[in-house]
Amino acid sequence: MGRQYDLEATRGTGGIKKTESAKGRARKELIVEAATRLVARNGSRGTNLAEIATEAGVSQSGLLYHYPTKEALLNAVLDRRDETEDEILWRDADAGLGILDVIAQNVTRWAENSQTVGMHTVLVVENLGEDGALHPRLAGRYHATVDRVAAVLSSAQDRGEIRDDVDTRLKAVEIIAFVNGLETAWLLDPEIPVAVTAKAWATQQRLAMATSPG
Amino acid sequence: MGRQYDLEATRGTGGIKKTESAKGRARKELIVEAATRLVARNGSRGTNLAEIATEAGVSQSGLLYHYPTKEALLNAVLDRRDETEDEILWRDADAGLGILDVIAQNVTRWAENSQTVGMHTVLVVENLGEDGALHPRLAGRYHATVDRVAAVLSSAQDRGEIRDDVDTRLKAVEIIAFVNGLETAWLLDPEIPVAVTAKAWATQQRLAMATSPG
Repeated sequence: MGRQYDLEATRGTGGIKKTESAKGRARKELIVEAATRLVARNGSRGTNLAEIATEAGVSQSGLLYHYPTKEALLNAVLDRRDETEDEILWRDADAGLGILDVIAQNVTRWAENSQTVGMHTVLVVENLGEDGALHPRLAGRYHATVDRVAAVLSSAQDRGEIRDDVDTRLKAVEIIAFVNGLETAWLLDPEIPVAVTAKAWATQQRLAMATSPG
Repeated sequence: MGRQYDLEATRGTGGIKKTESAKGRARKELIVEAATRLVARNGSRGTNLAEIATEAGVSQSGLLYHYPTKEALLNAVLDRRDETEDEILWRDADAGLGILDVIAQNVTRWAENSQTVGMHTVLVVENLGEDGALHPRLAGRYHATVDRVAAVLSSAQDRGEIRDDVDTRLKAVEIIAFVNGLETAWLLDPEIPVAVTAKAWATQQRLAMATSPG
């Protein structure tokens, strides 16, 4: 349980960065978007690099130049998702109970990013077992997120904003379970009122945790 | 949102029941267990009927006699899971806030039934889209469960046990999201303390919802 978060270690790609042309960057973005769509729809097992190249409108050799293997491409797809999530969730590194509102607010963005939400859910479930190629990365990311949420809550608890009887680590596990489970329910039925559910959830969580509710 | 629960309609198999020998029933049970294991491990897309027959130790024609198609077999696998879940969750049809403890208690059974938990998670994610063969069944089951949880909570609210400001339907969506998300986290890392997380969750939910906490 004593894991520290080491976000760099959960990234699949190394730190080596070639100088890229604007055209190269745009082509990589097209490929990553196409891969996101196809993985969300058919799973990574049901998608090959040739199909992704066609979907992206690039040649197969063009795709292979940037992403020589499916694993390299899937890691790039996850990098893009993780960077976006980090920007939104951790804008305020010491949000305290405000983290609940940040999370509830983020739910309203799902509709614009349904391919990314779906891709992530599919990749996690395809890599539940330890033999999954992306398992170490996805499990590492999960633990890093638990650590970060727990750290935000613990720091608020130290400031006296959260009741002493709240176990901030269990609470972090609970919060992430709720969000991920809501994602899956919403992917199964996009008509589920997720934004209002998340808002009611955040209000109740705040009341239950705060030392001075309201 | 005005769905009524109609559990029979969410079952994939019809009501026709042949007279079966004990041997036939035992063989079907072996096949369903083997399918559960393989789907949990490789997904239904990654599993064919021949592999399931081998895993079950029956001939392929023996398997086809009972389950002529993969879809028929997957429906039988889900029937078995749904029946077990129904027996546990709905033993007390009017549990009120006790439903929280029933759910938290059920989490302690996951370890004995990890294949079933994994199979269900995998099938849901493989059938998120409306074109998934099992999508209508799985979405129907999800809605039926929301309806049942909401009905239990509404009935407790009518008796004055739950605060009037709790929206019981949003709360049902929230509860199921938490449980399903916790399942996925646990499948990703079985060392996550799910039983203690669920117990802390149930305690806090009870405090937040009850008219007279404690």
